[in-house]
Amino acid sequence: MTRTVAILGATGLVGRTMRALLEEREFPLGRLVLLASERSEGRRETFRGANVPVDPVSEKSFEGVDLALFAVTNPLSEKWAPAARAAGTRVIDNSSAFRYHPDVPLIVPEVNGALLEARPTLIANPNCSTIGIVMALAPLLAAARFERVVVSTYQSVSGGGAEALEELERGVRGGLDGDPPPRAGGLPPFAFNVVPHIDRFEENGYTREEMKIVWETRKILDLPRLAITATAVRVPVRIGHCASVNLELDRDLTPDQARALWAKAPGVRVVDDPADGRYPTALESAGRDEVLVGRARRDPSRSHALEFFVASDNLRKGAALNAVQIAEALARVEAGAR
Amino acid sequence: MTRTVAILGATGLVGRTMRALLEEREFPLGRLVLLASERSEGRRETFRGANVPVDPVSEKSFEGVDLALFAVTNPLSEKWAPAARAAGTRVIDNSSAFRYHPDVPLIVPEVNGALLEARPTLIANPNCSTIGIVMALAPLLAAARFERVVVSTYQSVSGGGAEALEELERGVRGGLDGDPPPRAGGLPPFAFNVVPHIDRFEENGYTREEMKIVWETRKILDLPRLAITATAVRVPVRIGHCASVNLELDRDLTPDQARALWAKAPGVRVVDDPADGRYPTALESAGRDEVLVGRARRDPSRSHALEFFVASDNLRKGAALNAVQIAEALARVEAGAR
Repeated sequence: MTRTVAILGATGLVGRTMRALLEEREFPLGRLVLLASERSEGRRETFRGANVPVDPVSEKSFEGVDLALFAVTNPLSEKWAPAARAAGTRVIDNSSAFRYHPDVPLIVPEVNGALLEARPTLIANPNCSTIGIVMALAPLLAAARFERVVVSTYQSVSGGGAEALEELERGVRGGLDGDPPPRAGGLPPFAFNVVPHIDRFEENGYTREEMKIVWETRKILDLPRLAITATAVRVPVRIGHCASVNLELDRDLTPDQARALWAKAPGVRVVDDPADGRYPTALESAGRDEVLVGRARRDPSRSHALEFFVASDNLRKGAALNAVQIAEALARVEAGAR
Repeated sequence: MTRTVAILGATGLVGRTMRALLEEREFPLGRLVLLASERSEGRRETFRGANVPVDPVSEKSFEGVDLALFAVTNPLSEKWAPAARAAGTRVIDNSSAFRYHPDVPLIVPEVNGALLEARPTLIANPNCSTIGIVMALAPLLAAARFERVVVSTYQSVSGGGAEALEELERGVRGGLDGDPPPRAGGLPPFAFNVVPHIDRFEENGYTREEMKIVWETRKILDLPRLAITATAVRVPVRIGHCASVNLELDRDLTPDQARALWAKAPGVRVVDDPADGRYPTALESAGRDEVLVGRARRDPSRSHALEFFVASDNLRKGAALNAVQIAEALARVEAGAR
């Protein structure tokens, strides 16, 4: 196997996690190309014991590259995806630039990986909160129809990138003995705070992050009319996105039945033994591949309603791991096609 | 006015805030008695420039005391409330020991303060999360009937008392450059974490904290059959409880109408201008008397449903301020009766 793989955004939090996962999971590749903006020129990163330079991305970067994992902002994805595809490079894109395009599959391999059999050349990787929520919701579709989903998230600061994480660290240190300093632009501090604002506000009063959860859950579950709403909130945590999920169903589903469905689902781990003090937490999810689900209980405020709590590593399953799993699934499709 | 007032639990987070508020609000009292367990013996606190000793509580402590504010655990409230009442002392109790007793009024003065006109001798102060939520819900009852309420909380660590807050500080300092240390008893750290576990677990899978929100919201709003459910979550914040509230109504209520109702409600402050980056946060609520409400929006997943976000200082309005406001209302009732 002499496949060449590139990571665009190789020095960011997600890009670095992609590189670590390609190594950790022994992804079948012959050569790894690390790409970033000119700001990162001169940097080198380690991969499989070798010292790999980080190259500034250019029109020529994608020549001979079979697969590129993009971990950059929307404008950069919009700029470089056409160049990559023109060079014959398949792109798995972690930005939201292409997620809502009807021709671009939005993939969580355990849920809708079958769409990769069409061998798409551009695949969108979902929002970091959405992936955990969808991984917990999907197994329950085998038992009941969804009437409505109400989500409130508890999102870590690494979801906002390396600079946001540095702001958290500065804020925590600056706030050890008093109020944490405000963020740049007068924004409320991350440290010691709860901030119900992620991404920009839309006209309907929801943030774009909240609408991503709505749009992407519908698309991934192939339930375009699903009734779903979300409140997306930043909390002073480094890694690990949590969500409180209230799910209304068309028939009864007991917590035991839900746990049995999750236990069978690849990539989901049931952590739900309150008597023993076991439930999902942000810290327990950090560094793990599985999505943790627990606190399952019958919601007495509505018949056929279930509540549960989800935690997952937003850099791994919420971003880099899911992208690498898409790449792995594509490699299997290609191997099968040969 | 020569009324004598006592604070039981005077050295705890809530007791200290009660003392500060009695001074700040110029509560009409002649003498302040500070009571605590024997552990606090020898401590002295300042009140109106005077140095007040903290006395160990005993059977004799309540002699000549007109009003006692209790800020202690359930067992201590259960032990000392009868002694106080036997001495003719009116008790405002911040524990949950008496909250669910049908004969004990559970009071948020702005909402159901009229019950104080009966001059009860034992009054329960509600749960710190419940008060903020109820303050935001109550004004909307003027416009619509409530069909269902789904709450997810973001609760600060001071809600767990002074020792919990010290654990947070230790955890943050110990976790500046790595994983925070576990809490005593192997419990998950507060620092850099999201923990969906407050108070003990009940048989139905809900925590007692979650059921407090259910039971107390029903009692305070006098809606004994209200469909309501909650997920109560601890976040690494010092002061300020937040809640994401999804409210289903029997008729349409626009965000503008909701904001107009809140703007008229005493003790509620509308902080809801996303375009200007204004919404409730935990830090903005800390040190303030008002409950902050914002992020009001029409929930598209259900007709006649509204979502909003609440933040309030759990030591002030969530505990000590509400108790002092009850005392003030009782003083007005008495003044009126004379």
